[in-house]
Amino acid sequence: MILIIKNDKKDEVGKLINWIKGRGLDVHMSEGENTTIVGLIGDTSKLDIDLISSLDIVEAVKRIQEPYKKANRKFHPADTVIDAGGVKIGGNNFILIAGPCSVESEEQIIEIAEAVKKSGAHLLRGGAFKPRTSPYAFQGMGAEGLELLKKAKKATGLGIVTEIMNINYLSLFQDVDIIQIGARNMQNFDLLKELGQSDKPVLLKRGLANTIEEWLMSAEYIMSKGNEKVILCERGIRTFEHFTRNTLDLSAIPIVKELTHLPVIVDPSHASGLSRLVPPMSLAAAAAGSDGLIIEVHNDPTKALCDGAQSIKPDIFDAIVKKVSVILPLVGKAFSK
Amino acid sequence: MILIIKNDKKDEVGKLINWIKGRGLDVHMSEGENTTIVGLIGDTSKLDIDLISSLDIVEAVKRIQEPYKKANRKFHPADTVIDAGGVKIGGNNFILIAGPCSVESEEQIIEIAEAVKKSGAHLLRGGAFKPRTSPYAFQGMGAEGLELLKKAKKATGLGIVTEIMNINYLSLFQDVDIIQIGARNMQNFDLLKELGQSDKPVLLKRGLANTIEEWLMSAEYIMSKGNEKVILCERGIRTFEHFTRNTLDLSAIPIVKELTHLPVIVDPSHASGLSRLVPPMSLAAAAAGSDGLIIEVHNDPTKALCDGAQSIKPDIFDAIVKKVSVILPLVGKAFSK
Amino acid sequence: MILIIKNDKKDEVGKLINWIKGRGLDVHMSEGENTTIVGLIGDTSKLDIDLISSLDIVEAVKRIQEPYKKANRKFHPADTVIDAGGVKIGGNNFILIAGPCSVESEEQIIEIAEAVKKSGAHLLRGGAFKPRTSPYAFQGMGAEGLELLKKAKKATGLGIVTEIMNINYLSLFQDVDIIQIGARNMQNFDLLKELGQSDKPVLLKRGLANTIEEWLMSAEYIMSKGNEKVILCERGIRTFEHFTRNTLDLSAIPIVKELTHLPVIVDPSHASGLSRLVPPMSLAAAAAGSDGLIIEVHNDPTKALCDGAQSIKPDIFDAIVKKVSVILPLVGKAFSK
Amino acid sequence: MILIIKNDKKDEVGKLINWIKGRGLDVHMSEGENTTIVGLIGDTSKLDIDLISSLDIVEAVKRIQEPYKKANRKFHPADTVIDAGGVKIGGNNFILIAGPCSVESEEQIIEIAEAVKKSGAHLLRGGAFKPRTSPYAFQGMGAEGLELLKKAKKATGLGIVTEIMNINYLSLFQDVDIIQIGARNMQNFDLLKELGQSDKPVLLKRGLANTIEEWLMSAEYIMSKGNEKVILCERGIRTFEHFTRNTLDLSAIPIVKELTHLPVIVDPSHASGLSRLVPPMSLAAAAAGSDGLIIEVHNDPTKALCDGAQSIKPDIFDAIVKKVSVILPLVGKAFSK
Repeated sequence: MILIIKNDKKDEVGKLINWIKGRGLDVHMSEGENTTIVGLIGDTSKLDIDLISSLDIVEAVKRIQEPYKKANRKFHPADTVIDAGGVKIGGNNFILIAGPCSVESEEQIIEIAEAVKKSGAHLLRGGAFKPRTSPYAFQGMGAEGLELLKKAKKATGLGIVTEIMNINYLSLFQDVDIIQIGARNMQNFDLLKELGQSDKPVLLKRGLANTIEEWLMSAEYIMSKGNEKVILCERGIRTFEHFTRNTLDLSAIPIVKELTHLPVIVDPSHASGLSRLVPPMSLAAAAAGSDGLIIEVHNDPTKALCDGAQSIKPDIFDAIVKKVSVILPLVGKAFSK
Repeated sequence: MILIIKNDKKDEVGKLINWIKGRGLDVHMSEGENTTIVGLIGDTSKLDIDLISSLDIVEAVKRIQEPYKKANRKFHPADTVIDAGGVKIGGNNFILIAGPCSVESEEQIIEIAEAVKKSGAHLLRGGAFKPRTSPYAFQGMGAEGLELLKKAKKATGLGIVTEIMNINYLSLFQDVDIIQIGARNMQNFDLLKELGQSDKPVLLKRGLANTIEEWLMSAEYIMSKGNEKVILCERGIRTFEHFTRNTLDLSAIPIVKELTHLPVIVDPSHASGLSRLVPPMSLAAAAAGSDGLIIEVHNDPTKALCDGAQSIKPDIFDAIVKKVSVILPLVGKAFSK
Repeated sequence: MILIIKNDKKDEVGKLINWIKGRGLDVHMSEGENTTIVGLIGDTSKLDIDLISSLDIVEAVKRIQEPYKKANRKFHPADTVIDAGGVKIGGNNFILIAGPCSVESEEQIIEIAEAVKKSGAHLLRGGAFKPRTSPYAFQGMGAEGLELLKKAKKATGLGIVTEIMNINYLSLFQDVDIIQIGARNMQNFDLLKELGQSDKPVLLKRGLANTIEEWLMSAEYIMSKGNEKVILCERGIRTFEHFTRNTLDLSAIPIVKELTHLPVIVDPSHASGLSRLVPPMSLAAAAAGSDGLIIEVHNDPTKALCDGAQSIKPDIFDAIVKKVSVILPLVGKAFSK
Repeated sequence: MILIIKNDKKDEVGKLINWIKGRGLDVHMSEGENTTIVGLIGDTSKLDIDLISSLDIVEAVKRIQEPYKKANRKFHPADTVIDAGGVKIGGNNFILIAGPCSVESEEQIIEIAEAVKKSGAHLLRGGAFKPRTSPYAFQGMGAEGLELLKKAKKATGLGIVTEIMNINYLSLFQDVDIIQIGARNMQNFDLLKELGQSDKPVLLKRGLANTIEEWLMSAEYIMSKGNEKVILCERGIRTFEHFTRNTLDLSAIPIVKELTHLPVIVDPSHASGLSRLVPPMSLAAAAAGSDGLIIEVHNDPTKALCDGAQSIKPDIFDAIVKKVSVILPLVGKAFSK
């Protein structure tokens, strides 16, 4: 970290240096004609950059070291490959996670699981606990939904991915293969810490208005407690555009892969909220270098009106998979086995 | 709620109407030359507007009823006045909540409590559990910090306001007068539901990139479970501006007061992250019609460098209070007694 | 357009209706239990939706007709194919526009033109008049730069694309094949009107914080004056992310193609500002259904340090073209001939 | 400007240094344990920070000098006071600019001018050339509107403020006292340059999604050409909030006054687009330290329905002025004389 000291406050710099040294860091001073620069040497990840930059004598602060360590590719150059119920995620493996928005019935979840498995899906997704903006909206089937997911897992052999919202329910997630943290909980730090003590792979969705650095800091929360099996998921950010519910940020994919060794996948269904955008954005995500896709698939979107919005039918999913297979060699990837 | 049906999909409208009726609602049809409009009659708050608007046959959806009921001024025209440890909040009462960012020691918290009480503060704030972007940053004194706050309450008589991050610690908050939900937890729905079953006043901060409607829906989560003592707090939203950490949205104040009967206060300290902006933005908040202020005050910002950033000294707080007292009559308010 | 009238203001609706009729529109009234709806019949594109929605008696306004007509796919279902110097743009044609950020010398522009032509580029881009945030930064070679572009056109046969910033220089653009309007001028309405009277194809970049509807309204400005040869260009929008200069909004591509018959291409160079993101985002743009790419290519990015940032070398461009050719059949497109 | 060089690219730094020296700057090197820092000495305002920061060998760039000079308070510590038709703007003077959105008729403009003058307005505003999102919307009375403004000036003695959209009409603005540049033209650099050669005071509105630094750079464009009479105007920025058209950024006021010596006023009418928000936001703007207000006032908002949205009536304006007069002494200001 580099601190640039205001010219007219140079005399007070000694006090600041003492405070920095009191935090176990060393300093390297450099005085130019108009500027005094204080370089901090040591582990600055515990320093609050906002606080320092608002000190009166500080003109500006520039972090050099990234504030994340375990997630940082600089310290772990090789791609992390995570095993989730036997499926390899990361490296040159491309994975397909598919399934309905909400688990509704045993018949529904098994039927969809069988369909997406046939098209090549590696894992089954399905919501049991649903985060809803309104307290009056359907909140998911809860524990019963989890039971139905497990039945579908047994019936098809597909590992399951589902969201946790309350750490007190963690014991219910024992047979889940990947635990998902939703966008609105990306900075629910107590939930992150608790999952950091689990040994389950965690699918960490990016918050609606969060930067990539904040996202990686949330991954770091989980990793710092011991669980390094974090899979990142880009699912659209909030912008001024209204035709789509959110704006899928595909340029985040190559950036994230530069900054971290963790796998990063894309959710094209939640990003736009429109089923007809799922095919083009799935292809684009594969072309941008994503490590996989998580897609909402429904057996009969018209019948279950309330789920039809962003879900595609199995035949559309099948067509996407076939096209993705043409793109993967261009980006040095192949479907995970 | 009004649904506008696509011209070329009119034939399929029957199916949609059956689905709507299946949810206990009635419909009112209106066919214009180029447009078919379906008006929904009944309680539409349980309908998911995103889902409906993405149905193929729906051109557009317009909500008429607000999706919040208990928080809605239409159904409760009079201002709600909340009693927090004997302090009246809302109506034409203006309150002052002041105290340090973090509780650091018994001496510190009592000294500040005495100083701000002398200037007219009604309640003492102080962080014990701190939400931090980095897992390596100081996470607050925790339970011990809560104990020190209680000592300051005993010493000065000021009620206390502090943040909860994990519902499992609720029992520790028994002597707290107002429980705060931080911006990053505004859509931590499980936390909202649990506090909805408490009888403590809740200070609900607005999320960094949330709309006013989402904020009111989070208030509704708490109220729908039985706890109607919700105080809203505007604390700055994320924008493209970098000189300030966030952008204080003061136009939210008159808007919120139109839409809801709940009190709304302003946090000028977190909004900008700069102590020198606290005085002008405090006056502006009072002039905009806020029901109060929550301000970070520190006894020695220079000594405790890490807190100096957005905290002001007691004498600055005192000067703000004096100026606010000139503004309050202009907006029909007076300091709470 | 549908107006929803406030329940307690129903009595004043007559005045509003008279005002509407005075603007040549007819109305269709629909009274529900709690709501009065006024449907406007006729051409509402001249009505200011912001003004109407803020009238006291109006609860809400919902536009049904899009405010753009000539750009609207509803009225022109077939793709528009534009001829720019013999190159077909739109339909199932995919075009490649390439060249340096700024024209620097005759040697430079011709060398690059030859290189990109060899790889398959259809048109040459190059900046002569440069929009710069700072008045002290290099503003481009101006008229002299235009002359050098024309020499490159003569030498290679490639049509040229370059930006106009001041309508008074239009006469200089006579031999230019596509005139570009930059992002910061997207709502420079006087410039749009003037180019609407030209017969040159116009490349209209999306503004940094503009919605798709505003972008189409700017296209409509040009078309309403008679020039229907508008090519849209997505070049990244402003978000909270800092690793990239802007965030490329690829979901805009399928949305724009739904709403309008005009071609839409992607500029991956300006979007991120990072040359290493150009390859993945070019492939992603093709996979998302874009009608082409406009890419900054430089002959020696290291030598000309100041241009190296977002420009790629010719060999990288060549590799992108080869990979794009694999993707195009998946989206029903082929390189323009 | 400080450049932080990537550890593994140190060997290439010589080339960069040569390039920097070739631009007339000197360098100051500082090598820490893990970091090489290059400090640039001299006038770095011509360097493009985006370009440099994207060079391969550069880890990060930190500007120390602000890129604006003439607008910079560091070099001009005293407030600039601008004389506009005899009215002093800046320093401890507070000004009131009021008038209708659009000039409609001689009777209208004179009637409003007389009313606002009586309440204390210093200058009359009124739109003749109107920037409209839609080409089909009313574009203002144009030159005829300017003539009517001049008649109102003659009748009341109030100086006039009106917007220019096309530099070719500059000759029509000879009797205008302050020429306004609208938000959408804030980065119409050619317009800025041309007004930089005029001697008229310029009211420069902040762009909808522009940072304060970009705003000051646009002021610098005007000043760099010789015209230092620039008045800044905060008019709301685009955010995710929909209840208001834009979000008034009042924290920009104290920040701008720190960074520049130029006056800065507030437009509460355009910011929210809602007339009922004009009173609270006017008071808040005064309390935040603004140098004045520009308010839309209409003689009969109900009659002229299309203007009623964000305009207030003269009696409301009068009440605002009276309340503002109570606030001004708190911030060390008084109405301009």
